[in-house]
Amino acid sequence: MANKHKHNDNKELQTLLVFGPPVILPTLEARNLHKYRFLKAFSSQLPLHQFLNMQNVDPSSIQAILCNPLQQVSADVIRLLPSLSIIVTNSVGTEHIDLSECSRHGVQVVSAGALFAEDVADMAVGLLIDVMWKISAADRHVRKWGPSKPFNLSLGSKLEGKRVGIVGLGRIGGEVAKRLEAFDCRIMYHSRNKKPFVSYPFYSNVVELAGKSDVLVLCCALNEQTRHIITKEVMLALGKDGVIINVGRGALIDEKELVWCLMEGEIGGAGLDVFENEPNVPKELFVLDNVVLTPHAAVDTQESTNKIYEHVAASLEAFFLSKPQIVPAMND
Amino acid sequence: MANKHKHNDNKELQTLLVFGPPVILPTLEARNLHKYRFLKAFSSQLPLHQFLNMQNVDPSSIQAILCNPLQQVSADVIRLLPSLSIIVTNSVGTEHIDLSECSRHGVQVVSAGALFAEDVADMAVGLLIDVMWKISAADRHVRKWGPSKPFNLSLGSKLEGKRVGIVGLGRIGGEVAKRLEAFDCRIMYHSRNKKPFVSYPFYSNVVELAGKSDVLVLCCALNEQTRHIITKEVMLALGKDGVIINVGRGALIDEKELVWCLMEGEIGGAGLDVFENEPNVPKELFVLDNVVLTPHAAVDTQESTNKIYEHVAASLEAFFLSKPQIVPAMND
Repeated sequence: MANKHKHNDNKELQTLLVFGPPVILPTLEARNLHKYRFLKAFSSQLPLHQFLNMQNVDPSSIQAILCNPLQQVSADVIRLLPSLSIIVTNSVGTEHIDLSECSRHGVQVVSAGALFAEDVADMAVGLLIDVMWKISAADRHVRKWGPSKPFNLSLGSKLEGKRVGIVGLGRIGGEVAKRLEAFDCRIMYHSRNKKPFVSYPFYSNVVELAGKSDVLVLCCALNEQTRHIITKEVMLALGKDGVIINVGRGALIDEKELVWCLMEGEIGGAGLDVFENEPNVPKELFVLDNVVLTPHAAVDTQESTNKIYEHVAASLEAFFLSKPQIVPAMND
Repeated sequence: MANKHKHNDNKELQTLLVFGPPVILPTLEARNLHKYRFLKAFSSQLPLHQFLNMQNVDPSSIQAILCNPLQQVSADVIRLLPSLSIIVTNSVGTEHIDLSECSRHGVQVVSAGALFAEDVADMAVGLLIDVMWKISAADRHVRKWGPSKPFNLSLGSKLEGKRVGIVGLGRIGGEVAKRLEAFDCRIMYHSRNKKPFVSYPFYSNVVELAGKSDVLVLCCALNEQTRHIITKEVMLALGKDGVIINVGRGALIDEKELVWCLMEGEIGGAGLDVFENEPNVPKELFVLDNVVLTPHAAVDTQESTNKIYEHVAASLEAFFLSKPQIVPAMND
């Protein structure tokens, strides 16, 4: 608190360049007007250098960016800001940030990391049960027809004994595995490397994993190695009763082929929280009862929003507080 | 096989009086025409004694009834059939059968018992995640509006740390608890008596359990003690953020009060697979985005249908085979 007040008394507002904008921005703004000047680049159509010029801001005065995946933090942006030292994103993924350029310029990137792992895992399991049991389809049916028409979608399918291939066994994948073990599913996984101390069967080849699986759950980060990791070949190997759950990023799947496979019955169903061209969702899926579609909602809980607010606020505070002065040691 | 053939060779068809009808009847019929004469009481509007008369069947020749919960097996029915010895129902619940009358006449009742416990538990967890994360509501929204309108339902809520009160900790309740522990929920329960060897906190009073819970999951059987066990008082104790999941029987809840509590925001949401007057679902619920409605679908999996077929067929076979003759011992 002493530091906060000192900071406040100095009346030196730190400039925060905001892309996105992150969902927590209104709260951050309301609580930190005495600390930060919020430069809302997201609200302008101008190129960044013109925007800064209009605001009378010297690009070399900007040390911090706050962003979310809706807007790119490109190499051009990073090069324009010679004093940039930190980028805080309120997302788990960092694919909207040019990490190579950050690395070249010594810019620290702070993401939500594992903060959302449990939320995303809850959503993955929820989507899976929903697809297997056709809960959303049944709910639509009941609301539309009431008792006048019996629910005649094909029978649901239980989770017990299902072979679940997790693509990307990081924090999120691990939380998914933990949950699905309680349903007596059989867990397998693919990741860049076999994990030490993990007893689930490992497959270095995704097609092979799909061939052994009833369900694929996509939990990995999107990068050049994982873009379209789920090809048509993978889906055909998964087969006509197979289900795909995607809580990672839309572009992990070749979406055009996914739509084709679903429409042709080449796979059994899908639960999708993410899409290749968000917020667009392929319209062909709207008529299918074997898919469940949610609009990238897996981290939208009140609890997570509170957590991310605290994480972002603390990251920025730690950065700016450590800059202007050396905090005196306890015994000084 | 030897016994089966002997039975077949004798050409003595056993009479099976069928109420309901159970979903497995077509399969049972197709595979057992050489064993049973199927008397389809469900397809007639006549009183049972007239129906039997029309079919030239002596009531005292009937030893077995096959049924499901759609049709009552009343005391009158049981009294009409002096040789009735077994009632096989393809349901978990037996509230459609007059158990006291069965007991007085020494009629054995065979239900699906714990066969469906895992299915029903899957469904309970699926409904809970769906309500907490508003999956079905989001899916409806995406299908209706696509990207033209952002999904603006209030934020979802994670399962971690939620206090879940299970009403009825039998096989199904136990399977629900096992699953929700993997989501780091805190389990409590109410049942007739405190279970030995169970470490979850026990509440003898449902209102008190509701007051301590974020979620109530109803898994108990319907009987005179449990009818309307979830009163308005229980729901008010659960509170405005509380969620009720019902995979037991509709009449466990005072449905009129449930509808009122949901409409007035006195509870936070509900996931309902069962209703008080099935197949009717209260129409007032159709406009609410905090409820998920499925048409008593929790046991409708292909795997369960196969299981129940085997269970029913084996129960009937065991009964009839044990009747006409003593099966010779292996060393005869």
